[in-house]
Amino acid sequence: MAQNIYDDPDFFSGYSQLPRQVQGLEGAPEWPAIRAMLPELSGKRVVDLGCGFGWAARWVRGQGAASVLGLDLSQKMIERARADTVDSAIEYRIADLDTLALPEAAFDLAYSALTFHYVQDFARLVRVIRKALVPTGHFVFTIEHPIFMAAAHPHWISDEDGRKTWPVNGYAIEGERRTNWFAEGVLKYHRRLGTTLNALIDAGFQIGRVEEFAPTPEQITQTPQLSEELERPMMLLVSAFVPASAPT
Amino acid sequence: MAQNIYDDPDFFSGYSQLPRQVQGLEGAPEWPAIRAMLPELSGKRVVDLGCGFGWAARWVRGQGAASVLGLDLSQKMIERARADTVDSAIEYRIADLDTLALPEAAFDLAYSALTFHYVQDFARLVRVIRKALVPTGHFVFTIEHPIFMAAAHPHWISDEDGRKTWPVNGYAIEGERRTNWFAEGVLKYHRRLGTTLNALIDAGFQIGRVEEFAPTPEQITQTPQLSEELERPMMLLVSAFVPASAPT
Repeated sequence: MAQNIYDDPDFFSGYSQLPRQVQGLEGAPEWPAIRAMLPELSGKRVVDLGCGFGWAARWVRGQGAASVLGLDLSQKMIERARADTVDSAIEYRIADLDTLALPEAAFDLAYSALTFHYVQDFARLVRVIRKALVPTGHFVFTIEHPIFMAAAHPHWISDEDGRKTWPVNGYAIEGERRTNWFAEGVLKYHRRLGTTLNALIDAGFQIGRVEEFAPTPEQITQTPQLSEELERPMMLLVSAFVPASAPT
Repeated sequence: MAQNIYDDPDFFSGYSQLPRQVQGLEGAPEWPAIRAMLPELSGKRVVDLGCGFGWAARWVRGQGAASVLGLDLSQKMIERARADTVDSAIEYRIADLDTLALPEAAFDLAYSALTFHYVQDFARLVRVIRKALVPTGHFVFTIEHPIFMAAAHPHWISDEDGRKTWPVNGYAIEGERRTNWFAEGVLKYHRRLGTTLNALIDAGFQIGRVEEFAPTPEQITQTPQLSEELERPMMLLVSAFVPASAPT
């Protein structure tokens, strides 16, 4: 079972004040890159794994999706999502992605933003998602980049020229990583990039796109602080799909 | 045009003494992992891009390949490969992978080991390789991992616990990297991992496997120095294939 850090009062309070939680999707610099990876949404049945406050669920419906099922481990998240949503085609449910069950061939798109690094058994979850999608169905997700989360002490250092530099160690040693982020001992699971992609392939997905988010020059002009994102990849963005000829 | 560092006398002299050049494939710790990614070789027409002394070309023929075309930019490499090979089904040619032309639908397998980081226009080369392969053809290659080659000063440092740590900066800034390796100013080209994979997908390949080489416990027992390869990925191993239904 995944750690439910989001219901920790300190964590929830800090997390709720992140620009991306206050402003929604437009507060996330990687959002334009994610948007470019999404398929046509009109009429689609969508599941959002780790839906948080429901920003993406409501946006997807605004793009014409037929229905959205938003799942999150955090009761506080789900309560707030429900309070912020007036749309009978969006349903929110508390769910642990480490034990998740989904109906088979029930969705056209599975979406997840910055959630899977909390999941212990990613290969299991990917198989559940694969079965829940119809042939030609899409799976688009973001996850903390393994380069960002591998090290024992993941924080900026300086190289001999004083340049912002990110340390990497323990990259091949997969498993638990504890960090302090709004709360002590937030539990994440490190997997190599190859492990993440091979789990998709093993489950029957075809890889469509692999992006390592970097800000555009325009974004850096607007928000100079984003330039540090050129130094090391913080987020991995993946799109995959179920081949049209896949067995159902 | 790629830099022809391999014909530099100092470089060639140092390089020729690497275990993998003296002992051949068994001298490369990643060889078992590569081997596991190769398709059945019997009867296959193979092209080896950056064939060096011809170790892989001769091994592939020993596994029953019908023919092997070995290509390398270095005249010294090709001369030595020819001198070491007595097999009329293996041909060696000098070729620059940045301007390479290959016959269409002429090969079943394209193979390359630790060469593509010298190639400036990888997307062009991948399109040439795609056209040179038949449907169901395989493309298996290794390349320096972008995490290994991104930084301005790519060498071991220590973290606050004294642990071997690898520095990363400039990851999103693709292009030239100069390093000193047997000679001054060896020219390599950094690309993000996503860029490498997306170039394959854009050319019509399907991704089959993505591995980031790490030594096995047995390998570390035999060669304790290899344990540092657990700290950061040095090599990326990729297998891709042309779908059976692909247009020729």
